Amino acid sequence: MVLLRRELGDVLREKRQDQGRTLREVSAEASCSLGYLSEIERGEKEASSELLASICKALDVPLSEMLSDVADRVSLAEAAQSQMTVVLNDGLAKPLHHRPVGTRRGRSVVSAA
Amino acid sequence: MVLLRRELGDVLREKRQDQGRTLREVSAEASCSLGYLSEIERGEKEASSELLASICKALDVPLSEMLSDVADRVSLAEAAQSQMTVVLNDGLAKPLHHRPVGTRRGRSVVSAA
Repeated sequence: MVLLRRELGDVLREKRQDQGRTLREVSAEASCSLGYLSEIERGEKEASSELLASICKALDVPLSEMLSDVADRVSLAEAAQSQMTVVLNDGLAKPLHHRPVGTRRGRSVVSAA
Repeated sequence: MVLLRRELGDVLREKRQDQGRTLREVSAEASCSLGYLSEIERGEKEASSELLASICKALDVPLSEMLSDVADRVSLAEAAQSQMTVVLNDGLAKPLHHRPVGTRRGRSVVSAA
């Protein structure tokens, strides 16, 4: 399952690092604890809408731009996920990582489901 | 301040209504209470990433598409918000709704801040 907070966390971290700024700097400007911002970036905590707005402001990135970048990442993650779903010979769609080792040659159809 | 949950709620409601479906139908399919879905649509509650994924699945709309639509709405809201910030004669940027009645002729500059 593609989760918003994970993709959002990746985008937030990327923007911060692109600006060469530390967690300490951005968390202080966003009035949020360093630990909490770190958890948000790692996709472990959900940011409230108010906190997300504060972080965007601290990073000087409009929320719309942040969300657009997240939408692009989510789209890639969805495509990767659908490619990982293979239809095995028994006709049941199963995630790739659930296939037992050694069955790679059994892959016949890649589902777009 | 433009808040994600409000714009997201509007997009979720719009998608559901475009499909001619009721809160009851979608909440049942998303395994969420009707009242909670209603609060999410009204922008009063934050949806967890897991619940958002469930609602998107129930609506048969990819999360990426939902987020892209939300990004577009947020962009419009940001533009509207910046147009509502006027620079008054005293040079201070103030929200339009804080201007006293009868000062409309005093508006001289529309800030893009």
